Parts: sequence; structure tokens; C-alpha cells
Amino acid sequence: MDHSVFPAWPDVAARLIAVAAGRDTADCVIRGGQWVNVHSREVLTGYDIAIAEGRIACVVPDAAYCTGPDTQIIDAEGRYMIPGLCDAHMHIESGMLTPAEFARAVIPHGTTSMFTDPHEIANVLGLAGVRMMHDEALLQPINIFTQMPSCAPSAPGLETTGMEITPEDVAEAMGWPGIVGLGEMMNFPGVANADPKMLAEIAATQRAGKTVGGHYAAPDLGPAFAAYVAGGPADDHEGTCEADAIARVRQGMRSMMRLGSAWYDVERQITAITEKGLDSRNFILCTDDCHSGTLVNDGHMNRVVRHAVDCGADPLVALQMATINTATHFGLEREIGSITPGRRADVILTSDLSKLPIEVVIARGQVVARDGACLVDCPHYDWPDSARQTVHLGHALRAADFEIAAPEGANSVTANVIGVVENQAPTKALKCDMPVIDGLVEGTEEVCQIALVERHRATGGVVNALVSGFGYTGRMAMASTVAHDSHHMIVVGTDRDQMALAANRLAEVGGGITLFRDGEEQALVKLPIAGLMSDSPADQVAASADALIAAMVESGCTLNNAYMQHSLLALVVIPELRISDLGLVDVRTFHKIELLDPQT
Amino acid sequence: MDHSVFPAWPDVAARLIAVAAGRDTADCVIRGGQWVNVHSREVLTGYDIAIAEGRIACVVPDAAYCTGPDTQIIDAEGRYMIPGLCDAHMHIESGMLTPAEFARAVIPHGTTSMFTDPHEIANVLGLAGVRMMHDEALLQPINIFTQMPSCAPSAPGLETTGMEITPEDVAEAMGWPGIVGLGEMMNFPGVANADPKMLAEIAATQRAGKTVGGHYAAPDLGPAFAAYVAGGPADDHEGTCEADAIARVRQGMRSMMRLGSAWYDVERQITAITEKGLDSRNFILCTDDCHSGTLVNDGHMNRVVRHAVDCGADPLVALQMATINTATHFGLEREIGSITPGRRADVILTSDLSKLPIEVVIARGQVVARDGACLVDCPHYDWPDSARQTVHLGHALRAADFEIAAPEGANSVTANVIGVVENQAPTKALKCDMPVIDGLVEGTEEVCQIALVERHRATGGVVNALVSGFGYTGRMAMASTVAHDSHHMIVVGTDRDQMALAANRLAEVGGGITLFRDGEEQALVKLPIAGLMSDSPADQVAASADALIAAMVESGCTLNNAYMQHSLLALVVIPELRISDLGLVDVRTFHKIELLDPQT
Repeated sequence: MDHSVFPAWPDVAARLIAVAAGRDTADCVIRGGQWVNVHSREVLTGYDIAIAEGRIACVVPDAAYCTGPDTQIIDAEGRYMIPGLCDAHMHIESGMLTPAEFARAVIPHGTTSMFTDPHEIANVLGLAGVRMMHDEALLQPINIFTQMPSCAPSAPGLETTGMEITPEDVAEAMGWPGIVGLGEMMNFPGVANADPKMLAEIAATQRAGKTVGGHYAAPDLGPAFAAYVAGGPADDHEGTCEADAIARVRQGMRSMMRLGSAWYDVERQITAITEKGLDSRNFILCTDDCHSGTLVNDGHMNRVVRHAVDCGADPLVALQMATINTATHFGLEREIGSITPGRRADVILTSDLSKLPIEVVIARGQVVARDGACLVDCPHYDWPDSARQTVHLGHALRAADFEIAAPEGANSVTANVIGVVENQAPTKALKCDMPVIDGLVEGTEEVCQIALVERHRATGGVVNALVSGFGYTGRMAMASTVAHDSHHMIVVGTDRDQMALAANRLAEVGGGITLFRDGEEQALVKLPIAGLMSDSPADQVAASADALIAAMVESGCTLNNAYMQHSLLALVVIPELRISDLGLVDVRTFHKIELLDPQT
Repeated sequence: MDHSVFPAWPDVAARLIAVAAGRDTADCVIRGGQWVNVHSREVLTGYDIAIAEGRIACVVPDAAYCTGPDTQIIDAEGRYMIPGLCDAHMHIESGMLTPAEFARAVIPHGTTSMFTDPHEIANVLGLAGVRMMHDEALLQPINIFTQMPSCAPSAPGLETTGMEITPEDVAEAMGWPGIVGLGEMMNFPGVANADPKMLAEIAATQRAGKTVGGHYAAPDLGPAFAAYVAGGPADDHEGTCEADAIARVRQGMRSMMRLGSAWYDVERQITAITEKGLDSRNFILCTDDCHSGTLVNDGHMNRVVRHAVDCGADPLVALQMATINTATHFGLEREIGSITPGRRADVILTSDLSKLPIEVVIARGQVVARDGACLVDCPHYDWPDSARQTVHLGHALRAADFEIAAPEGANSVTANVIGVVENQAPTKALKCDMPVIDGLVEGTEEVCQIALVERHRATGGVVNALVSGFGYTGRMAMASTVAHDSHHMIVVGTDRDQMALAANRLAEVGGGITLFRDGEEQALVKLPIAGLMSDSPADQVAASADALIAAMVESGCTLNNAYMQHSLLALVVIPELRISDLGLVDVRTFHKIELLDPQT
């Protein structure tokens, strides 16, 4: 079914009026529930919701007057009727799922609106890729709004992305039906320095009357922050402490507090409301990044709302932060975010506002999930070959491609080694003495090889370097085409033959993650769409991701979140040392450095 | 000065950023005040506001780092810095002043944004008149946004307006720079009955992404109200009691609570917040209608905020209801309504948040008023002859035009008389026995004549009828071209010669209000613009209005608000009996009736 032609309020106003007036009967009535009213912040007992054309016609104490023999009745007796939940900022690609499969995974958790920034695919496929995500989003039975990615590349001059996003792209995208604004403006130094490209993207968004997403990932709340705010971003989800949240709201931004698979930023910020008593209207909940395993096992926005309540928020305030506050922020409060006339009929039935069991989910007037089961089709976009064949190696890789030549005659070298730090995104820039055998730098028990394999333009480029911290033993290699943000291919291994096997395997399957040991593939997560996403169901993807993590552990890996660490090693905007297709990058200075120190 | 080219945020973002970062210096710094933060709902002591290009660059504890030798310093030590006040719904014409003179009157009261519905001029001059109001509005040093009038005529079929507003007009106006939405949709029965014309106007507004103003003036909160809400109006200012306010907010509308010259609807509704504890974000303050005398003597939105505080509202909540709540409602929260970066630098300095003395007013970074004196030019639009010559009589009127012929041979008649009721807008439909002299119906001590003189198309039409309640004595007549809503000319008098004199006088001066007694003009309020507004200063208009009221009293008038009663006698949407250019109208049945009962 194609949901993209969902009619606008004025298209169906005459019918809504007729139902509300009692001259016509509703398509569906949700009967006798407790109306959680996020406008007045009240729970009102004994209300009926009359629905027509997928929108709410009226909410009244007794809808018998507009109920006919063909009206579907949904009994809400003894349950709360809450608005469908909104995720205010997130990246679908983080779930390694297409929009359709992501939707299918989150619908049973009560998510009916998402504000998605397809930043990852933008790096691989540019504007065309964003459009594909946007178009699949519009096919879904829930509301998936797209934020136009702002920063591809994230680090101009330090990496080569598959495609770049320009201000002209941004201006063009603002005319698409599903675009609600600009995705997180990560280049905060660029904004504070009035970089014309960044300001042009913001301007195109503001002139279109849409919302500029922010991303200010520094603790400095002085002039650098003031300058960023003056540039126009309207929200920020990078705050991590109460002072961050308060500063953003005082400056007229909305504070988005996130609980993702690896983000835990609600508890330390929500005290701005629960303890400091600030007006809660400018606080919003989001996930930013959720792995498929989190979606399968723990939930989505329902998990975030529960967590906010556990952190001391009034349940009604927590719900406002996941419904009307979000809708208002994006200028959509007359479309989503509350159970009131004219809005899309997105309603959850639950018997407990704190534990928030998601018992029935109604989206656009249709029952889309019941007791954890998705009951609706989530149509797939017909992804073209250009999106399914994005792993372009210049040639089949051989062990020799991963050799690191030592200077003539050296028995050992001093190398700049990327030091992975447990549970942290930043790495350490280490100096390690490395052995040389037959003229090649070799790994040790502590340090293994890493390679960044160019995969967008088939240049055949391979950048080799060294990494510590994974703990791998034996002859193994792991490769991934999820390699933030430019998404080339990262290969980490103890053995060059295994590295070649892993890299070639990903080229063969069109992208994903694989781990080889002793010549055998131990696990494979296929991500055929842009090398980032699977169009298989979330539980299958989660299972294969679990198998991959198990294979990492069996290969000696001792890190928490080791897969995430792997995929972030090319993220040349986070200190201290990273790898890119252009070489080894010291992110403290934003300069490339040599792998090996000159011999003394 | 032409203020209409005030630059947009993105036009000046680079400069704002440079100031906030300290690379450039501010044009102006407001120093050391207490920052009333309407986002967080806090008062923060010791903040500086740095301003550049008329917008706020940053709000910081110490702006010395972006202050230079040419930076203007405004000392705010010991004072509160509050956002400029917003009037969320109002009719400029009610002040009998042009937008420029209205602005000049309210700037010293701290009003820096108004949402105006030029409904009156729309009835006289149609879309062209709305455009003139819109264009003069954009010349002003404060923000005057225009709501496109929705209902001209208000009562199709029962009156002939000068011009009509069509859905095509609405669609066209949505593209004008100063239009923020549709003016109050007064035809609430039309909406509830899905009148295609009304729905087309709403649709044009919604499709333009703008705000549909509401006007639901009935106590019925059942299906009729539900049907109206389902039609799309986003706010309503016609509520008069707590239940009205609560019902609107629960249904997802914003409740606008008004305190105008004759409207007192705040006290009985604000208990929804102060006693019932509803979330205050959806409550907004406005004036709707203010006479020039109120503006000169009592204030404007400052009067409303003070009143809300007197009614028990927390001063910060009251201020939110006159600033950020309004801005959010109209999708302008990143433009006005708070003291935060990027917004227009509209700031009031006051030493008391409850009494709210308006000590300094800054609009767009410029000091526009100090201690009650307006310090800025409010430019006049060059009103064309079409707007200045709108009183078109078919011929000079004579006493004979006002004769009411009795049936042949009658000595007395029974007439349907409009009964004015003290302090109420509705009239009574009375039956009175009237004397007949020389074949003409004559007035009595209780009942005098009223005439509706056609003045838009020079048809020469005069509708004669009878009215009671004014108490006029002697030989007098009063005429007004302010005659809601179609704004023909209403003449009330005890003597037909005086009626002709008064009517001809208004034709001579291009409209206004005059009172004649014994052949002499006793008072004249000249309203040369559309017969509705003066381009003289408010104090002069208020003084001449006072003189007119004194002349009414001297002529025996005993009514409160007698002038308003006079001007509402043609308002054929409020029961029970009214006069229009088409005859006497029974507004209980929406049918025309005969003035004289058939003789039995």
C-alpha cells in the first residue's frame, strides 16, 4: 500500500466536520478511554475518539451520535489513550535497517512519528540517496519526516566521501514533501566561524520556514556557543549535563535529551525540569541512534519515556516531551503530537502511564500493532542498483595490499597507533615500538593492523595503519562498510590474508560486516543497501549482529561495544587519532600525520 | 524611514555570529539587567544583551568582549529586561486610527508586535484596502502582522458590503510578506455546516502553512463546537468563562483571553491556569478592540498583562502569555517573543514585573520610547483617493429621505423597534405603538428614528426604522460611517432635518461621526480613511471622541458606551433586531421583516 498520498486536513475537512456535527458517521471510534491531553496536561476520564479519513474528527464524552453500523469500534475501557510517540532526532541507518524495516520494528513500541536525518547514506550516495530514504519513508504507515543532511563530508579536506552535500542540494530538498528541516549542523566550528557554505545551508532552511537541527558537541558554553546559537540552529541533542540543557533552553533552543543504544543523556539533564523547575515545554526526548538489537529487545521511544519517568519526570510531562513538544518544535502541532481534531489519528492504548506497556497502536486511524506484533505492511522502496552496489574496489585485494613497509634496513619502528579506549568515542594517539620482519612492520599482541579501503570510486586506495585495544588473537580480520562518516571500508586484523578475504567478501555481498578467522567466515551481517542497511527484518539483523559480536569475542576481543568502536575509527571529527582515505589524521590538530616516525 | 526592508535572520547571521564570537562589536548593548527568560520561565540576574542589525546577537553575563567604542550602551541596572509585548488578535480600526498612528500610540506602552485583522476596511475597500493596511503596517518600526479578513460580508444575503472577500482573495494574500494567517473565522455556523466558501478560505490558509484564526461566539460546547474545531480554526478569543477556555485548549486550540476597551474576558477564564492548574502554554492574551481613549489613558498590552497579574497569574506566566506563547502560535518563535539570539531586538525595561511600568522600549534594536514618550517616526502610507473618498451618497439628503410613510388613513401604527439594551451588544426586538402625523410615522420620547444610508455605491438607498433606548431629546441627529460590519452610514435622530444635515456633513468630510443639534454641529470625529480611521494622533482622536460623547450626553443620551451601541446597530449577526441596507433584519431568524405591522 502506498501511504504517501495521505490526505491533508483541508482535503478531508468537510468529512471531519460532518462526523463531528453528527451528520455522518465515523470510520472508527475508540471508546471509553482516559484521554491523555497533552495540551492541557490532564487525564480526562471517559472520552471517545471519532476518526474519519485517518484523522481525528472529534474527541467527545460520547460519540454514539456519530457512530454507525459500519463504524469500527476499538474498546479503550480502563486504558489510557496517549498520542503516538515521536522520535525528534534519529538516524535510521544506525539500526542497520531500511526505513521500512525500521518502521516495522518500532511500530509495536508505539512510535508513530520520526524525524530522521539520513546522514550516513548522504555520505555514500549524496542527494540521490537522501531522496531514496525520503521516498521509502513516505511509503510507511507512520510518519517519517526527513531532515536534510547538512554535513557531508563532516570533515572537508580530511576525507573523501562518496558524495558531497551542497547548499544547492539543501535548497532543492526543502521543496520535497517529506522534508522538515536541516539535519544536525555538526560543523559547529564552521558555524562559529561563519563558514559561508554552512550559513548558506542554514539560510536555505530558514527561508523555507523549516527547522535547523543543531549539534554542538563541546563543553564550552562561552562565546563559541553563543556564536553557534547566533547562527540559527534551533535545537541540540549533544548536551550531556544539566548545565548544557539549561543553557540551550535559555538561549531559545530546544534541548533534545537522548537515550539511544549507547547514549545516556536523559538522566543528567532532566533535572533541569525535575529539580530546577524550568518550564518543560522546550525539552524533547529522542534516541539519535538505536541498534536493531535495542529495537528488538528493549523498545524505542517507549523506552525513552519510561526512562524519563524513572528519572523522576511526571508521566504527563514525559509524554509531552515525546509528543506535543516535538510537534510544536517542527511546526507540526496541528498535524501530529496530540489527540485532538484534525490531527492524524495516531493513538496508543496503554494500561499504565509509568510502565507504559504498548498494548494497541493506531496510526492514521488504522490498528497497526497489538501486544507487540506489527499488523501492518511496511512497503519497501524499489532500491536501484546504484544503491545496492556501492562497494567499488579497484581490484580484488591481496595480502600485499595491507603491507606496511618499514624503512630500509630497520629492525623496528616507532609508530603512531590509534588507541581505542573502552566505553569512549575519543581514541588516544599512542606511540608504540613495532617489530619489523622481512622489511614489513608487523603487529604485536597489543597492536594489530587497520586499513581504510576506498570503496566509493574504485581507486584501489588502501591506507594502512595500526590500532590497539581490541585484544584480537590468532589469525583473523574484521571488515565493515559502516565506517562513519564517509563509510569507506574499515578492516582490522591480525593477519593480512584474512584482511584481504574479509574485504573481498564485503565487495562480493555489497557491503556489511564480516569476520574471518583462519580462512573461514565466522559471521556476516549483510547490509546491501549503500553498505549501511539491510532490508531484512530487525530480528534477523539483530541476530546476525549478535553472531558477529560473538565471533569478535571468540577472536579475543575484550571491548564493550567493540563493533561500534570499529565503525567509528574513521570518524575524523572526534579526537585524537583516526584513519581516513587520505591517511592518518590527528584530530587534535586536524592535520594528517605519518604512520611511522622518522628514524633517528 | 521605510522599515519594511528589515533584514531576515539569515541576511545578517554572519554579523550576529561575529559579534557573539567577539570578532566584531555590537551596535548596542543593554547592560546589566535582569533577563526575563520566557523559554525557561526564569529571571536571571546580571545579563547583557548585545544587538546588531536590529537583532539580538547574544545574551551573556558580560558583553564587554563584544562592546566597542561605537557601541551604544543602554543601562539596565536594577531593571527587568522583558520581551516586547505581543497583541495576538486585534483590529486596528477599532482605535479609529491608521496603523501608523495606532503604532505611535502603543509603542510607549511596550507593544512591539501586533496581529491585526483589518476586517473593517475589508468591508469597505475589499482586498485593496487590506493591502493598504498591510503596507502601512510594514512601514512601522514595530512588527505589525496582518491576518487576512475571512468574512466580508459577515452576513451574506442580509447586507451589501462595499466589497467582498473571496477564497481567491485569501489565497492571493497568503503570498504577501506581512500576512500570518486568516482573520477570525466568524462564520461559525458556516464552518459547522461545511460551507464550501469558508472551507476554501481555511484550506488556502492551511496550505500556505499559516494560522487560521477562530471566532466561536456561542455557549454550546457540544457537536456544533466540535464541528467548528474539526474545520480547522487554531485559536479562539470569544470565550467568556473558564469552561470556554478549558474546552478550547483541550481541543487543541489556543485560548486567547481578551481585555479590550469593552471586553473583560480574562478574569473569568484565567482561573483555568490559576485554579485548575492547566498547562499555561496554550493561553494567550489579546485586546481585540481598543478605543483611542483606552490607548491614551490606560495602555495597551501592558494593561492586559497587569490585569492578568491582578487576576492571580504569576507575572512570568502572564508575560509568557503576551510574548512567547503568541509567537509560538503564529510560527514566529524564532523571530519574536523572547530575548534570545537571532530574534528581533524588541525589549522593554521595567522596574516592576507586576505593576509593569514601561520605562524604556527598544524595538529592532532602536530605543523607540522612554517614559511614555514615543521617540520614533511612524511613517504614513500614501493613502490614495480611493481610500480617502469612500462616502458615496447618491444625492444630497433631505429631510424627506427620512420620512416613514404610514398606511393611508392610519392615526397610529405598531412598529418593530430596535431596543438598545444598556451594556449589552444584543438588542431587543420591541413592538411599539407610534403616532402618525400628516401621514408620517413620528418618534416619541422613548423612540427615535434610525436610518441606514447606503454609502458604498451611491445608490441613494436609505432604509428607515425606529430605535429606542438612547434617550435623546430636542432636535438632534447623530451619524456615523463606522457601522459594523458593512460600514454604511447609521443616522439616529429625533428630527429629520438634523438627520439630513448630519449625513451630508459626513459625505462632505469623507466619513466619521458627527452630532447636530438645532442645525449646528456639536462635535465631529473626522475619519477620512475609509470612513473608519483618522491619520491624526491618538490623543487628538481621543479628544474629539470625548467631545462627541459629551455632545451625546448633552443631547439627553443616558447610555453607557452609547457610541459603540450606535455603531453596532447594523451588525446583522448579533440578535435580535438590526438594520441593514436591505431592510430591518430579525437576527433570531436571519430574515428581513417589515418595519410596520400590517393594520388589523
